[in-house]
Amino acid sequence: MTAAGIDRPGGTLYTREVPVPSPGRGEVLVRISAAPVNPSDLARLKRGGFDPETYIPGLEGSGTVIAAGSGLLPAILKGKRVACTAEYPASGTWAEYMVTKAGKCFPLNKTIDDEQGSMMMVNPLTAIGFLDIVKENKHKALINNAAASALGRMVELMGNRQGVPVINIVRSEKHAETLRNSGSKYVLNSSSDSFIDDLGRLSHELNATVLFDSTCSEQLGKMIGVLPDSSSVVIYGNLTGEEHIHVNPRKLIDNNINISGFFLGQRAKENGLLKNLINLRIASRLVSSNMKTAIQGRYPLQKVQEAVDAYMGNMSAGKVVLRINSLEIV
Amino acid sequence: MTAAGIDRPGGTLYTREVPVPSPGRGEVLVRISAAPVNPSDLARLKRGGFDPETYIPGLEGSGTVIAAGSGLLPAILKGKRVACTAEYPASGTWAEYMVTKAGKCFPLNKTIDDEQGSMMMVNPLTAIGFLDIVKENKHKALINNAAASALGRMVELMGNRQGVPVINIVRSEKHAETLRNSGSKYVLNSSSDSFIDDLGRLSHELNATVLFDSTCSEQLGKMIGVLPDSSSVVIYGNLTGEEHIHVNPRKLIDNNINISGFFLGQRAKENGLLKNLINLRIASRLVSSNMKTAIQGRYPLQKVQEAVDAYMGNMSAGKVVLRINSLEIV
Repeated sequence: MTAAGIDRPGGTLYTREVPVPSPGRGEVLVRISAAPVNPSDLARLKRGGFDPETYIPGLEGSGTVIAAGSGLLPAILKGKRVACTAEYPASGTWAEYMVTKAGKCFPLNKTIDDEQGSMMMVNPLTAIGFLDIVKENKHKALINNAAASALGRMVELMGNRQGVPVINIVRSEKHAETLRNSGSKYVLNSSSDSFIDDLGRLSHELNATVLFDSTCSEQLGKMIGVLPDSSSVVIYGNLTGEEHIHVNPRKLIDNNINISGFFLGQRAKENGLLKNLINLRIASRLVSSNMKTAIQGRYPLQKVQEAVDAYMGNMSAGKVVLRINSLEIV
Repeated sequence: MTAAGIDRPGGTLYTREVPVPSPGRGEVLVRISAAPVNPSDLARLKRGGFDPETYIPGLEGSGTVIAAGSGLLPAILKGKRVACTAEYPASGTWAEYMVTKAGKCFPLNKTIDDEQGSMMMVNPLTAIGFLDIVKENKHKALINNAAASALGRMVELMGNRQGVPVINIVRSEKHAETLRNSGSKYVLNSSSDSFIDDLGRLSHELNATVLFDSTCSEQLGKMIGVLPDSSSVVIYGNLTGEEHIHVNPRKLIDNNINISGFFLGQRAKENGLLKNLINLRIASRLVSSNMKTAIQGRYPLQKVQEAVDAYMGNMSAGKVVLRINSLEIV
């Protein structure tokens, strides 16, 4: 089969021919239909921590279960269209076929197409996780950094559905306009001179005491500096690649600030099976009704490489989708 | 009356004559008997945020209530020996008299002498707060950085009383020996080459998932790097004066690390009245039985200046006590 590979961490993507893997006990073989390029994919390609000889990228995707290993769940899934996530570094979704655990697959109904299904896990479940954090900690409003990203849009959507005001932060007036035009009530442009003051005023006004950030930029420290006392900062990415978080320890003490990391896998582990199934149901409804906005088009591998290059140059990834056909990645 | 003052943040301590303040509604006038020099006093003297013209340092102390403003609680306290904390920047405990809110005083019984009483609030209540955090979050063991400090000793004492293993971190073999000789089971020397490895091994062995730190040193980032997954870091000081916390954002995400600040005033606010009264009872029993070790001697103002100088030069404060007599600070 054809699969994507990378020659070294931060290096060049290419395609190669590798054997189709076989599913073992509790596993299934999925013929992949579509796979998105998530910032977390790019972060991993940049960071490494895998064997480039065997590594196949791609954290999530959609496809059809065409072979099942032993066990009840694989047998149930056989023949079904599924959304799925990768379990093994040597078998990701940027390939024609992937072996994964049956528990990493979720059957899709007909209202969800391949591309919607391919991005049903990472972003929707992350957005659901963020809103769970908001509710668990009784925050009255949230601050959504990198709000123009696919995930950022989904966070606002979830916030709106649950009646939680969302302060959206984008980094250009163009993005700010796009969001305002699509109905966002609170939009701040981080390139504006008055941004830090605006954030301070608005976060106090709405009592927005939780900030979700994937930038870890120098500006983050200034942003934390104006949040209401006892605010929480949830870090779910490090797009700037900074070595430390720009926050003065004094700020943590004097203003009772809390900083934590968010990792979807850890969250899923803490949730337990039932909560995860409920979240997957919510996610599938989300993508079937509202996620078209998060899908911007289909891109050949060259476009993915451009996104990777841009990411390696400390820019955020575009929203790209791999459409995986029978013999080549187009 | 004679009161201490400082000419500017980070400057020189001196004594001066100022009028004895008068208690207003709900306030009392305390004739101060003794006042400690806590690291938090020194941090504030260095950091500023007060008017040097009127500022009188000293966060806590002991003394006798000699005048009461209107209200029930002031009337009850009149004539009593008390432990007390400062409410107003212009009336601290490094003076012959202090006006504070009646609610900031706690009556002392005869088993507690003036010096014990003078340090009953800040360190004991902080140590109690730490152990509350351990219990609330079901940590199995704790890591006590700067363990040779007066507070560090008290944290271990509280841990021992509650059956929580304590990993003590000190920065010299001399301190390590002192602690081992006084019965500490787990002592690590942060100057040792094997320190980071030792901390990783021991924290996993004991499942020590909370680290209390007042240094914010560069080494802190390495320490966080070897803690068990889902550990918490509680920052209660910044002795090195670093501008940021040396922790890679990736670490927070990948290992589910949480960082928060600890400020006693905030904690007290969250506790509510009853819990605070219970804690003060525990604190008074702590000092009457075990706190002699935290009191190393009496020092004239010159010694305090030396401690301040040492602190300003990024060294930790010695344990010094001001003994306040009728007309001069000796």
